[in-house]
Amino acid sequence: MLINGQSGDSVAVLDRGLQYGDGLFETIAFINGNAPLWGRHMARLSAGCRSLGLPRQDAVRLAQEARQLLHADDAQTGKHVIKIIITRGEDGSAYFPGEGDATRILYTREWPQRAAQQGFEGIALHRCQTRLATGSPFAGLKTLNRLEQVIAAAEIKKAGLQEGLLCDADGFMVEALMSNLFWLKQGVLYTPMLDRCGVSGVMRAEVIEQAEHFGMSVHEVRETPEMLESAQAMFLTNALGLTAVRAFSGKPMDVDAVPVKIRNAIRQLFS
Amino acid sequence: MLINGQSGDSVAVLDRGLQYGDGLFETIAFINGNAPLWGRHMARLSAGCRSLGLPRQDAVRLAQEARQLLHADDAQTGKHVIKIIITRGEDGSAYFPGEGDATRILYTREWPQRAAQQGFEGIALHRCQTRLATGSPFAGLKTLNRLEQVIAAAEIKKAGLQEGLLCDADGFMVEALMSNLFWLKQGVLYTPMLDRCGVSGVMRAEVIEQAEHFGMSVHEVRETPEMLESAQAMFLTNALGLTAVRAFSGKPMDVDAVPVKIRNAIRQLFS
Repeated sequence: MLINGQSGDSVAVLDRGLQYGDGLFETIAFINGNAPLWGRHMARLSAGCRSLGLPRQDAVRLAQEARQLLHADDAQTGKHVIKIIITRGEDGSAYFPGEGDATRILYTREWPQRAAQQGFEGIALHRCQTRLATGSPFAGLKTLNRLEQVIAAAEIKKAGLQEGLLCDADGFMVEALMSNLFWLKQGVLYTPMLDRCGVSGVMRAEVIEQAEHFGMSVHEVRETPEMLESAQAMFLTNALGLTAVRAFSGKPMDVDAVPVKIRNAIRQLFS
Repeated sequence: MLINGQSGDSVAVLDRGLQYGDGLFETIAFINGNAPLWGRHMARLSAGCRSLGLPRQDAVRLAQEARQLLHADDAQTGKHVIKIIITRGEDGSAYFPGEGDATRILYTREWPQRAAQQGFEGIALHRCQTRLATGSPFAGLKTLNRLEQVIAAAEIKKAGLQEGLLCDADGFMVEALMSNLFWLKQGVLYTPMLDRCGVSGVMRAEVIEQAEHFGMSVHEVRETPEMLESAQAMFLTNALGLTAVRAFSGKPMDVDAVPVKIRNAIRQLFS
């Protein structure tokens, strides 16, 4: 683990990351030492820093530190995950942010077992009761304020599943716990709008670009889960890949109806 | 600073308090070694722990540790602040919370200069553009997810002020940055409802109880800031006291119209 370029594993209690969740993070897939979505991660991190008024992060330095970690952890081949956390550091007075240096944390994590399995078999999706507050000033960003996800995760675990669909306070679909959501209906792809809450996933952007490249329409919509009743297929995307939905709220879904071109494009990206 | 009863000043990067803002805090006023609102703080902390599924905290142990800190910091007389942070600790897998021990942090902070001054002179209140997301599963609780407050604080600072009125995403008043809001109109006190976002302050509860004791009506309402145009007085409450509003959004307010009985009751509580 690197903290501001030095080996370490702890942060000050007074760091605003702990005090207020005053920061951002990225979870980045590395395949044989390369991060296929690196540019998208850096773009989202930059947008987040601008939005929160955090110091701009040097993407070259982050890349160097990521490589240093992969080397140290003997992780230059195979699939690995690097998590980057940027907090505002300690400078400030109560909620009022200071102008001081950010805290920059990077570390490697195991590639999750479940991600590998689910890609082939598909995943069962719980319909969460937990709602996302709507009208967030941080809609789209991956901030350290993730308590809604923690509560939703507890609900999903209680239902015996690993993923769940989250709606906003008005009942409109937003995303899944750890992924963005797409569904297919008469040859058109749909995905929820993320202007009022939710995380604008790097793989979501990649899939939209790939789909348009293949001539498919992608519509961003504000819809309730009832619209999924007539969906031909559903799939989830996150920084670690694409996963078909094999059941939603107990109802079976056709895993094979996920567009093959998109599925293959993502598989190639990560091979 | 005490962390799980031991002297320390840092937490693990993997602590879920930093990773997700997975925790709660309390900021408690101590006057000559006593905390007049201790019971209310412990009640809110308990309710928060239940709501988030965090381990129940032993209020007697927290009180002992608070006294230990006040003794160590030679802070047994005068006004001091103790902050308590409870996080879920490190146990869990990604968003999924584990069942392990919480991290318990206590430390003393200086009593803020501004709190002392403003009580007499009143404070100018900015009208924030920053909105609070609405429909939060944690409405009323003091969680570690406070990024909205950080962004609002930056806005207030830019406006050259120290406090600001926050509305929810639908434009209804919720609270001030560091306080709850009351206003007076024809002998009746009003304060915003906190069922969709906001923090249910310990001093807010105290003021409501005191007002009712004095035979005043207190109405919890969902109203836009336009309702303040006909207000006779406005005041703010937080764990450190009561402060009159001397100007809102540039318009002067009558500091002396804040009900004297309530003002004195809070002053006595903290003397």
